[in-house]
Amino acid sequence: MKHLLNPLDFSVEELNELLDLARDISNNPQKYSHACDGKKLATLFYEPSTRTRLSFEAAMLNLGGSVLGFSSANSSSASKGESVSDTIRVISCYADICAMRHPKEGAPMVAAQKSRIPVINAGDGGHQHPTQTLTDLMTIRELRGSLDNFTIGLCGDLKFGRTVHSLINSLIRYKNVKFILISPKELRVPDYIIDTLKENNVEYEEVEKLENVMPQLDILYMTRVQRERFFNEDEYLRMKDFYILNKEKMALAKEDMYVLHPLPRVNEISVEVDDDPRAAYFKQVQYGVYVRMALILTLLGLNK
Amino acid sequence: MKHLLNPLDFSVEELNELLDLARDISNNPQKYSHACDGKKLATLFYEPSTRTRLSFEAAMLNLGGSVLGFSSANSSSASKGESVSDTIRVISCYADICAMRHPKEGAPMVAAQKSRIPVINAGDGGHQHPTQTLTDLMTIRELRGSLDNFTIGLCGDLKFGRTVHSLINSLIRYKNVKFILISPKELRVPDYIIDTLKENNVEYEEVEKLENVMPQLDILYMTRVQRERFFNEDEYLRMKDFYILNKEKMALAKEDMYVLHPLPRVNEISVEVDDDPRAAYFKQVQYGVYVRMALILTLLGLNK
Amino acid sequence: MKHLLNPLDFSVEELNELLDLARDISNNPQKYSHACDGKKLATLFYEPSTRTRLSFEAAMLNLGGSVLGFSSANSSSASKGESVSDTIRVISCYADICAMRHPKEGAPMVAAQKSRIPVINAGDGGHQHPTQTLTDLMTIRELRGSLDNFTIGLCGDLKFGRTVHSLINSLIRYKNVKFILISPKELRVPDYIIDTLKENNVEYEEVEKLENVMPQLDILYMTRVQRERFFNEDEYLRMKDFYILNKEKMALAKEDMYVLHPLPRVNEISVEVDDDPRAAYFKQVQYGVYVRMALILTLLGLNK
Repeated sequence: MKHLLNPLDFSVEELNELLDLARDISNNPQKYSHACDGKKLATLFYEPSTRTRLSFEAAMLNLGGSVLGFSSANSSSASKGESVSDTIRVISCYADICAMRHPKEGAPMVAAQKSRIPVINAGDGGHQHPTQTLTDLMTIRELRGSLDNFTIGLCGDLKFGRTVHSLINSLIRYKNVKFILISPKELRVPDYIIDTLKENNVEYEEVEKLENVMPQLDILYMTRVQRERFFNEDEYLRMKDFYILNKEKMALAKEDMYVLHPLPRVNEISVEVDDDPRAAYFKQVQYGVYVRMALILTLLGLNK
Repeated sequence: MKHLLNPLDFSVEELNELLDLARDISNNPQKYSHACDGKKLATLFYEPSTRTRLSFEAAMLNLGGSVLGFSSANSSSASKGESVSDTIRVISCYADICAMRHPKEGAPMVAAQKSRIPVINAGDGGHQHPTQTLTDLMTIRELRGSLDNFTIGLCGDLKFGRTVHSLINSLIRYKNVKFILISPKELRVPDYIIDTLKENNVEYEEVEKLENVMPQLDILYMTRVQRERFFNEDEYLRMKDFYILNKEKMALAKEDMYVLHPLPRVNEISVEVDDDPRAAYFKQVQYGVYVRMALILTLLGLNK
Repeated sequence: MKHLLNPLDFSVEELNELLDLARDISNNPQKYSHACDGKKLATLFYEPSTRTRLSFEAAMLNLGGSVLGFSSANSSSASKGESVSDTIRVISCYADICAMRHPKEGAPMVAAQKSRIPVINAGDGGHQHPTQTLTDLMTIRELRGSLDNFTIGLCGDLKFGRTVHSLINSLIRYKNVKFILISPKELRVPDYIIDTLKENNVEYEEVEKLENVMPQLDILYMTRVQRERFFNEDEYLRMKDFYILNKEKMALAKEDMYVLHPLPRVNEISVEVDDDPRAAYFKQVQYGVYVRMALILTLLGLNK
């Protein structure tokens, strides 16, 4: 029984297979349209996350399977005091695979221990969100052809952004990836990430202004900087524009630099950038469906 | 890319085609049971509307397609501050067509501008609810054989009832339709509707009591009169019975007069009327499914 | 038109047929995987009950059908003041069969009177929950081979537990079933149940401690004892451990005694019991899906 709880659960080789499958799906969706006939996905969302939930549901429906589940805890048995361990044993009787979103870190891992069906962590608190990382990896690989030899700028709130941490931890497994970490001082990546980068002899740089590093980037991964993360209002006002991507900043970038964003975006990418051919954040959503299709097939053992 | 945002988006000719298709579906549902195999409808309901949502879902399931979505804003990404423009671009990666209900007027139109899939307005605030109008038109056409040459009484709150306004605007495009507008003075149709009727040389009459005009009607379209719409309690008490349809009033009507209602009804149609063969409001619900099936096929270009 | 409103709606003979069908489904699920192609189940849950709702949905999906509905009243038209009678007439246009959960006793019966599709009571207040009873009966029958000749201990809150009352009323129709009713005095079964047992010359015993009767039992049906049901805290503290099933108590039981529970369990069965082969409460969940599949087929007339 294989689960996906952490983006690092797959080896680089397994990941390559998964991403190859996702690519094949994107090229020949019709070929897979009955691959999961008669299979059921349970979406167990203890907190709402429409984008992620619907991406899983679209993935399963594209494979010919069907979907059941709940979209928030108050319409679930959680409110009756049932443990996640019991819930997953019940759900194991209803579905063939499940995607669980939970506000508590580790809940999907607890579930996986008692589950008779594959469990996909669809986000557990501030901890992990592995299918976002798979989406990010597929997007970079499809846009650039490979996950080796490039410079990625990660911009915004690098302290609390779990997608950023997961992406860094995944990308250090590839060759010659250079990181430029762009954030206010208060929102720098945690020390343990820096330690990991050092231990793995990965090239990195920490900077405060996006503008200055734009020309170096092959990939720019944007995230939101929330006002309430700042200790002090003056600091926020001084710096907020550093982290807003607009046409001016795009003009400084390479012609084949791509912009990614895990969405939802609020105002950190100006809408004027949307029509730039280098804006890849909506393409990323589409890749997210393909990679989840590949994941479902893989965990159900239907990938061969 | 074709959307349905306003009941007048379709020309009379296009509407005839749509209603012909809906009729064929109602006669041969089996023929269409796989017409949307592999297609997905997204139901994006930013406010709950069970009847409308389930009508769309039943329509898509009847066509062999599948459904994903959300049924209220608090289980959606809207709460995270995402714009409708961004949401629709995401949903365009998940589904082939969508139905959007939104408390804000114009939201479906904003969505349509950025959408890569057909958008159906499933109600935007007090503004439009075009699939209710299509339902009403199909119902009248099926019951009477044609949309020309009849007298329709519209009864109740004609000031705020968006279904009434849409229906009037649609029916004036047909020949020799006479309108009898039955409401308290405070809840008469807005002036711009009267202007439209005059400009189009459409025969109409404004009256206060349903009873007096019953014998003239071929169609009676009932809506609810809410107590809180009245300026003054005495007025409400004096008049409320004028707008409650019961057996006594039905006795005054023609034998082939039909009663429609957009539902939900509260007490404006007495339950004793339900068994009258002229009560057509539950049939209307069934027509609503057929017309939505025809609409989905048409917008997906699967109608030929 | 056949509905299931009360567990006693089926005669013993009809029940046998249903349970035979459920058994055949459990042995040959593949055989039934397209039995409901093109059919739709509406799940009308006016109060949340994830386990029950998803069991119905899994059942319908296993049969090749599809599902629509709502999972709580606030996302339904109920909030607009529509009556259950009107709602069911609307739903009759959308689906082929429905399962209704409602906080008010009798609501499913009211619905059934106006419905054009079979209505399954999926729980109405403290009143009935017939598909739980069908699940319990199937579980006992599958585990023991028959519903005759055994001793069942019903343990916990026997006063308010509707599943217990329904199960007793159903089991007295079989031969030589002995009941041991294990509860605090304050939570004994209501008098009318005792009257029924006496009238039917059914052997029964009322006891306070589970421990003492363990060796006699063939089936132990556990339910929860809620603190707030006790008149007095001392009583609660004195007795609560009597009703918690643990390894020690299991050691006193027969080797082929099975433990059932309608779930969710809180702490009345210690998790250490879960790995005991006699713990059948998760198997029971699986039987619940099969019996609901059989029920859907039967009510749709697809069981022959």
